[in-house]
Amino acid sequence: MRLPWTPAFAGVTMKRTWQKKGRDALLKNIDPLLNADVLAALRAMGHGDRVVLCDTNFPADSVARQTVLGRLLRIDAADCPRAARAILSVMPLDSFVEDAAARMEVVGKPQEIPPVQKEVQQEVDRAEGKSWPMVSIERMAFYEHARKAYCVIASGERRFYGCFIFAKGVIPPDA
Amino acid sequence: MRLPWTPAFAGVTMKRTWQKKGRDALLKNIDPLLNADVLAALRAMGHGDRVVLCDTNFPADSVARQTVLGRLLRIDAADCPRAARAILSVMPLDSFVEDAAARMEVVGKPQEIPPVQKEVQQEVDRAEGKSWPMVSIERMAFYEHARKAYCVIASGERRFYGCFIFAKGVIPPDA
Repeated sequence: MRLPWTPAFAGVTMKRTWQKKGRDALLKNIDPLLNADVLAALRAMGHGDRVVLCDTNFPADSVARQTVLGRLLRIDAADCPRAARAILSVMPLDSFVEDAAARMEVVGKPQEIPPVQKEVQQEVDRAEGKSWPMVSIERMAFYEHARKAYCVIASGERRFYGCFIFAKGVIPPDA
Repeated sequence: MRLPWTPAFAGVTMKRTWQKKGRDALLKNIDPLLNADVLAALRAMGHGDRVVLCDTNFPADSVARQTVLGRLLRIDAADCPRAARAILSVMPLDSFVEDAAARMEVVGKPQEIPPVQKEVQQEVDRAEGKSWPMVSIERMAFYEHARKAYCVIASGERRFYGCFIFAKGVIPPDA
Protein backbone atom coordinates (compact mmCIF):
# COMPACT_ATOMS: atom_id res chain seq x y z
CA MET A 1 0.00 0.00 0.00
CA ARG A 2 2.96 2.34 0.44
CA LEU A 3 3.36 4.99 -2.20
CA PRO A 4 6.85 5.77 -3.49
CA TRP A 5 8.18 8.98 -2.08
CA THR A 6 8.69 11.62 -4.74
CA PRO A 7 9.38 15.34 -4.56
CA ALA A 8 6.03 15.92 -6.25
CA PHE A 9 4.31 13.91 -3.56
CA ALA A 10 6.19 15.80 -0.88
CA GLY A 11 4.91 18.96 -2.50
CA VAL A 12 1.37 17.83 -1.91
CA THR A 13 2.24 17.29 1.75
CA MET A 14 3.53 20.81 2.04
CA LYS A 15 0.17 22.20 1.04
CA ARG A 16 -1.81 20.68 3.89
CA THR A 17 -4.29 23.09 5.36
CA TRP A 18 -2.90 23.10 8.87
CA GLN A 19 0.55 23.96 7.61
CA LYS A 20 -0.76 27.13 6.06
CA LYS A 21 -1.86 28.28 9.48
CA GLY A 22 1.71 28.49 10.75
CA ARG A 23 1.22 26.05 13.61
CA ASP A 24 4.36 25.28 15.54
CA ALA A 25 4.13 21.70 16.73
CA LEU A 26 5.00 18.03 16.39
CA LEU A 27 1.41 17.52 17.35
CA LYS A 28 -0.92 20.05 15.78
CA ASN A 29 -1.26 23.20 17.91
CA ILE A 30 1.11 21.95 20.60
CA ASP A 31 4.53 23.47 21.24
CA PRO A 32 7.18 20.95 20.08
CA LEU A 33 9.14 21.43 23.31
CA LEU A 34 6.33 19.70 25.21
CA ASN A 35 7.52 16.11 25.02
CA ALA A 36 5.33 13.13 25.91
CA ASP A 37 6.35 12.99 29.58
CA VAL A 38 5.94 16.71 30.12
CA LEU A 39 2.58 16.82 28.32
CA ALA A 40 1.28 13.93 30.39
CA ALA A 41 2.37 15.56 33.65
CA LEU A 42 0.86 18.94 32.81
CA ARG A 43 -2.39 17.22 31.84
CA ALA A 44 -2.41 15.06 34.98
CA MET A 45 -1.99 18.09 37.22
CA GLY A 46 -5.11 19.59 38.74
CA HIS A 47 -6.07 22.92 40.27
CA GLY A 48 -3.39 24.13 42.65
CA ASP A 49 -0.77 21.57 41.67
CA ARG A 50 2.59 23.18 41.02
CA VAL A 51 5.34 22.67 38.48
CA VAL A 52 8.93 23.72 39.10
CA LEU A 53 10.92 24.99 36.11
CA CYS A 54 14.61 25.06 36.89
CA ASP A 55 18.07 25.83 35.51
CA THR A 56 21.01 23.47 35.14
CA ASN A 57 22.45 24.22 38.60
CA PHE A 58 19.27 23.46 40.54
CA PRO A 59 19.29 20.12 42.44
CA ALA A 60 16.64 18.98 39.99
CA ASP A 61 16.81 15.23 40.36
CA SER A 62 17.03 15.13 44.14
CA VAL A 63 14.14 17.55 44.52
CA ALA A 64 12.08 15.82 41.81
CA ARG A 65 12.29 12.51 43.65
CA GLN A 66 10.40 14.10 46.53
CA THR A 67 7.62 15.56 44.38
CA VAL A 68 4.27 13.94 43.64
CA LEU A 69 5.47 12.59 40.30
CA GLY A 70 8.69 11.34 41.84
CA ARG A 71 10.92 11.57 38.78
CA LEU A 72 12.56 14.39 36.87
CA LEU A 73 11.11 15.72 33.61
CA ARG A 74 13.27 17.48 31.05
CA ILE A 75 13.05 20.25 28.46
CA ASP A 76 16.78 20.21 27.90
CA ALA A 77 16.89 21.95 24.56
CA ALA A 78 15.64 25.32 25.76
CA ASP A 79 16.50 28.08 28.16
CA CYS A 80 14.04 29.06 30.87
CA PRO A 81 12.09 31.73 28.99
CA ARG A 82 11.51 29.41 26.02
CA ALA A 83 10.57 26.48 28.27
CA ALA A 84 8.23 28.72 30.26
CA ARG A 85 6.57 29.78 27.03
CA ALA A 86 5.96 26.14 26.12
CA ILE A 87 4.56 25.23 29.53
CA LEU A 88 2.34 28.29 29.78
CA SER A 89 1.04 27.78 26.23
CA VAL A 90 -1.10 24.95 27.64
CA MET A 91 -1.19 25.49 31.42
CA PRO A 92 -3.34 28.28 32.86
CA LEU A 93 -2.05 29.95 36.03
CA ASP A 94 -4.03 29.72 39.25
CA SER A 95 -5.90 32.96 39.85
CA PHE A 96 -7.00 31.78 43.32
CA VAL A 97 -3.57 32.30 44.91
CA GLU A 98 -1.15 35.21 45.02
CA ASP A 99 1.92 33.06 44.39
CA ALA A 100 0.81 31.23 41.23
CA ALA A 101 4.02 32.38 39.59
CA ALA A 102 7.14 32.57 41.74
CA ARG A 103 10.88 33.10 41.22
CA MET A 104 13.89 32.28 43.37
CA GLU A 105 15.36 35.32 45.12
CA VAL A 106 18.96 36.27 44.46
CA VAL A 107 20.84 35.45 47.68
CA GLY A 108 21.54 38.66 49.59
CA LYS A 109 19.77 40.79 46.97
CA PRO A 110 16.05 40.03 47.31
CA GLN A 111 15.06 43.04 45.21
CA GLU A 112 17.29 42.19 42.24
CA ILE A 113 15.59 40.66 39.22
CA PRO A 114 18.22 39.15 36.91
CA PRO A 115 17.66 39.10 33.11
CA VAL A 116 16.55 35.44 33.03
CA GLN A 117 13.76 36.30 35.46
CA LYS A 118 12.78 39.42 33.53
CA GLU A 119 12.48 37.31 30.39
CA VAL A 120 10.36 34.68 32.11
CA GLN A 121 8.19 37.47 33.53
CA GLN A 122 7.51 38.56 29.95
CA GLU A 123 6.43 35.02 29.07
CA VAL A 124 4.11 34.89 32.08
CA ASP A 125 2.51 38.19 31.13
CA ARG A 126 2.22 37.14 27.51
CA ALA A 127 0.57 33.83 28.34
CA GLU A 128 -1.99 35.37 30.67
CA GLY A 129 -2.58 38.43 28.51
CA LYS A 130 -1.94 40.86 31.37
CA SER A 131 0.70 41.93 33.87
CA TRP A 132 1.10 39.10 36.40
CA PRO A 133 4.14 39.94 38.54
CA MET A 134 5.92 36.93 40.01
CA VAL A 135 6.39 36.76 43.77
CA SER A 136 9.87 35.98 45.04
CA ILE A 137 10.86 33.16 47.37
CA GLU A 138 14.10 33.00 49.38
CA ARG A 139 16.42 30.23 48.17
CA MET A 140 16.04 27.70 50.99
CA ALA A 141 12.30 28.33 51.18
CA PHE A 142 12.16 27.79 47.44
CA TYR A 143 13.69 24.32 47.86
CA GLU A 144 11.10 23.48 50.51
CA HIS A 145 8.31 24.73 48.28
CA ALA A 146 9.68 22.84 45.28
CA ARG A 147 9.61 19.50 47.11
CA LYS A 148 5.86 19.91 47.56
CA ALA A 149 5.29 20.45 43.84
CA TYR A 150 3.68 17.98 41.48
CA CYS A 151 6.80 17.79 39.31
CA VAL A 152 10.08 19.39 38.31
CA ILE A 153 11.05 20.23 34.74
CA ALA A 154 14.75 20.81 34.12
CA SER A 155 15.50 23.26 31.33
CA GLY A 156 18.86 23.80 29.65
CA GLU A 157 19.19 27.26 31.21
CA ARG A 158 22.81 28.11 32.13
CA ARG A 159 22.14 31.45 33.80
CA PHE A 160 21.87 31.55 37.60
CA TYR A 161 18.47 31.93 39.29
CA GLY A 162 16.51 30.40 36.44
CA CYS A 163 14.21 28.78 39.00
CA PHE A 164 10.46 29.20 39.00
CA ILE A 165 7.31 27.63 40.41
CA PHE A 166 3.95 27.84 38.63
CA ALA A 167 0.57 26.77 40.06
CA LYS A 168 -2.00 25.33 37.67
CA GLY A 169 -5.33 27.09 37.30
CA VAL A 170 -8.68 25.95 35.98
CA ILE A 171 -10.52 25.92 32.69
CA PRO A 172 -14.32 26.17 32.97
CA PRO A 173 -16.90 24.17 31.05
CA ASP A 174 -17.89 25.57 27.69
CA ALA A 175 -20.47 28.31 28.05
CA MET B 1 -0.59 33.03 50.80
CA ARG B 2 -3.98 31.61 49.82
CA LEU B 3 -6.69 34.15 49.22
CA PRO B 4 -10.21 33.42 50.44
CA TRP B 5 -12.47 32.31 47.64
CA THR B 6 -15.22 34.81 46.94
CA PRO B 7 -17.71 35.14 44.11
CA ALA B 8 -16.14 38.49 43.26
CA PHE B 9 -12.75 36.86 42.97
CA ALA B 10 -14.21 34.09 40.86
CA GLY B 11 -15.63 36.82 38.66
CA VAL B 12 -12.16 38.03 37.97
CA THR B 13 -11.21 34.53 36.96
CA MET B 14 -14.04 34.32 34.46
CA LYS B 15 -12.62 37.28 32.57
CA ARG B 16 -9.29 35.68 31.72
CA THR B 17 -8.22 36.40 28.19
CA TRP B 18 -8.00 32.81 27.04
CA GLN B 19 -11.55 32.14 28.16
CA LYS B 20 -12.85 34.82 25.86
CA LYS B 21 -11.42 32.89 22.95
CA GLY B 22 -13.78 29.96 23.51
CA ARG B 23 -11.05 27.39 23.94
CA ASP B 24 -12.27 23.93 24.84
CA ALA B 25 -9.66 22.32 27.05
CA LEU B 26 -8.41 21.32 30.49
CA LEU B 27 -5.10 22.41 29.14
CA LYS B 28 -5.29 25.49 26.97
CA ASN B 29 -5.99 24.67 23.31
CA ILE B 30 -6.11 20.92 23.94
CA ASP B 31 -9.30 18.84 23.66
CA PRO B 32 -10.33 17.77 27.19
CA LEU B 33 -10.88 14.19 26.01
CA LEU B 34 -7.14 13.84 25.50
CA ASN B 35 -6.13 12.56 28.93
CA ALA B 36 -2.53 12.38 30.14
CA ASP B 37 -1.88 8.84 28.90
CA VAL B 38 -3.42 9.44 25.49
CA LEU B 39 -1.60 12.75 25.04
CA ALA B 40 1.72 11.16 25.93
CA ALA B 41 1.17 8.29 23.50
CA LEU B 42 0.17 10.55 20.60
CA ARG B 43 3.21 12.73 21.26
CA ALA B 44 5.54 9.74 21.54
CA MET B 45 4.37 8.36 18.18
CA GLY B 46 6.45 9.15 15.14
CA HIS B 47 5.91 9.21 11.39
CA GLY B 48 4.09 6.08 10.27
CA ASP B 49 3.18 4.85 13.75
CA ARG B 50 -0.48 3.90 13.99
CA VAL B 51 -3.19 4.33 16.58
CA VAL B 52 -6.25 2.09 16.76
CA LEU B 53 -9.52 3.68 17.84
CA CYS B 54 -12.07 1.04 18.77
CA ASP B 55 -15.60 0.44 20.05
CA THR B 56 -16.64 -1.41 23.21
CA ASN B 57 -16.88 -4.83 21.52
CA PHE B 58 -13.38 -4.81 20.07
CA PRO B 59 -10.86 -7.08 21.90
CA ALA B 60 -9.13 -3.91 22.99
CA ASP B 61 -7.06 -5.12 25.91
CA SER B 62 -5.79 -8.31 24.32
CA VAL B 63 -4.82 -6.50 21.13
CA ALA B 64 -3.30 -3.56 23.02
CA ARG B 65 -0.97 -5.87 24.94
CA GLN B 66 0.63 -6.81 21.61
CA THR B 67 1.14 -3.24 20.42
CA VAL B 68 4.28 -1.16 20.85
CA LEU B 69 2.90 0.60 23.93
CA GLY B 70 1.72 -2.68 25.39
CA ARG B 71 -1.19 -1.38 27.45
CA LEU B 72 -4.66 -0.13 26.65
CA LEU B 73 -5.50 3.58 26.56
CA ARG B 74 -9.02 4.85 27.11
CA ILE B 75 -11.30 7.66 26.00
CA ASP B 76 -14.30 6.07 27.67
CA ALA B 77 -16.56 9.07 27.84
CA ALA B 78 -17.04 9.52 24.11
CA ASP B 79 -18.33 7.70 21.06
CA CYS B 80 -16.02 7.09 18.11
CA PRO B 81 -16.68 10.27 16.14
CA ARG B 82 -16.06 12.47 19.17
CA ALA B 83 -12.93 10.52 20.15
CA ALA B 84 -11.67 10.70 16.56
CA ARG B 85 -12.17 14.45 16.61
CA ALA B 86 -10.05 14.72 19.75
CA ILE B 87 -7.26 12.53 18.39
CA LEU B 88 -7.17 14.23 15.00
CA SER B 89 -7.21 17.68 16.58
CA VAL B 90 -3.54 17.09 17.44
CA MET B 91 -2.40 14.21 15.22
CA PRO B 92 -1.77 14.84 11.51
CA LEU B 93 -2.51 11.94 9.15
CA ASP B 94 0.29 10.38 7.13
CA SER B 95 0.12 11.63 3.55
CA PHE B 96 2.86 9.18 2.47
CA VAL B 97 0.57 6.12 2.57
CA GLU B 98 -2.81 5.37 1.04
CA ASP B 99 -4.17 3.72 4.18
CA ALA B 100 -3.46 6.46 6.72
CA ALA B 101 -7.12 6.28 7.74
CA ALA B 102 -8.79 2.86 7.73
CA ARG B 103 -12.09 1.34 8.91
CA MET B 104 -13.11 -2.22 9.67
CA GLU B 105 -15.25 -3.77 6.92
CA VAL B 106 -18.73 -5.00 7.79
CA VAL B 107 -18.52 -8.81 7.64
CA GLY B 108 -20.14 -10.04 4.44
CA LYS B 109 -20.90 -6.49 3.28
CA PRO B 110 -17.57 -4.89 2.36
CA GLN B 111 -19.22 -1.98 0.56
CA GLU B 112 -21.52 -1.01 3.42
CA ILE B 113 -20.50 2.03 5.43
CA PRO B 114 -22.49 2.16 8.68
CA PRO B 115 -23.42 5.50 10.29
CA VAL B 116 -20.61 5.39 12.87
CA GLN B 117 -18.09 5.13 10.04
CA LYS B 118 -19.77 7.91 8.07
CA GLU B 119 -19.53 10.14 11.12
CA VAL B 120 -15.86 9.35 11.68
CA GLN B 121 -15.25 10.00 7.97
CA GLN B 122 -16.62 13.49 8.51
CA GLU B 123 -14.20 14.03 11.38
CA VAL B 124 -11.29 12.84 9.23
CA ASP B 125 -12.23 15.20 6.42
CA ARG B 126 -12.74 18.05 8.86
CA ALA B 127 -9.39 17.55 10.55
CA GLU B 128 -7.47 17.42 7.28
CA GLY B 129 -9.47 20.14 5.61
CA LYS B 130 -10.25 18.03 2.54
CA SER B 131 -11.93 14.80 1.48
CA TRP B 132 -9.76 11.94 2.75
CA PRO B 133 -11.74 8.69 2.16
CA MET B 134 -10.89 5.88 4.57
CA VAL B 135 -9.77 2.56 3.13
CA SER B 136 -11.51 -0.56 4.43
CA ILE B 137 -9.85 -3.59 6.00
CA GLU B 138 -11.48 -7.01 6.37
CA ARG B 139 -12.14 -7.91 10.02
CA MET B 140 -9.45 -10.54 10.62
CA ALA B 141 -6.90 -8.52 8.65
CA PHE B 142 -7.88 -5.54 10.79
CA TYR B 143 -6.96 -7.46 13.95
CA GLU B 144 -3.59 -8.37 12.46
CA HIS B 145 -3.00 -4.77 11.46
CA ALA B 146 -4.08 -3.52 14.86
CA ARG B 147 -1.53 -5.67 16.69
CA LYS B 148 1.23 -3.88 14.79
CA ALA B 149 0.01 -0.46 15.86
CA TYR B 150 1.72 1.78 18.38
CA CYS B 151 -1.30 1.79 20.67
CA VAL B 152 -5.03 1.14 21.05
CA ILE B 153 -7.51 3.69 22.38
CA ALA B 154 -10.85 2.28 23.55
CA SER B 155 -13.78 4.64 23.13
CA GLY B 156 -17.22 4.27 24.70
CA GLU B 157 -18.78 3.60 21.29
CA ARG B 158 -21.64 1.06 21.50
CA ARG B 159 -22.36 0.81 17.77
CA PHE B 160 -20.82 -2.09 15.84
CA TYR B 161 -17.86 -1.52 13.52
CA GLY B 162 -16.59 1.52 15.37
CA CYS B 163 -13.04 0.37 14.65
CA PHE B 164 -10.43 2.52 12.94
CA ILE B 165 -6.69 2.77 12.40
CA PHE B 166 -4.92 6.09 11.83
CA ALA B 167 -1.28 6.56 10.79
CA LYS B 168 0.60 9.57 12.14
CA GLY B 169 1.98 12.09 9.67
CA VAL B 170 4.66 14.73 9.99
CA ILE B 171 4.85 18.40 10.85
CA PRO B 172 7.66 20.32 9.13
CA PRO B 173 10.01 22.85 10.73
CA ASP B 174 8.76 26.41 10.85
CA ALA B 175 9.27 28.15 7.53
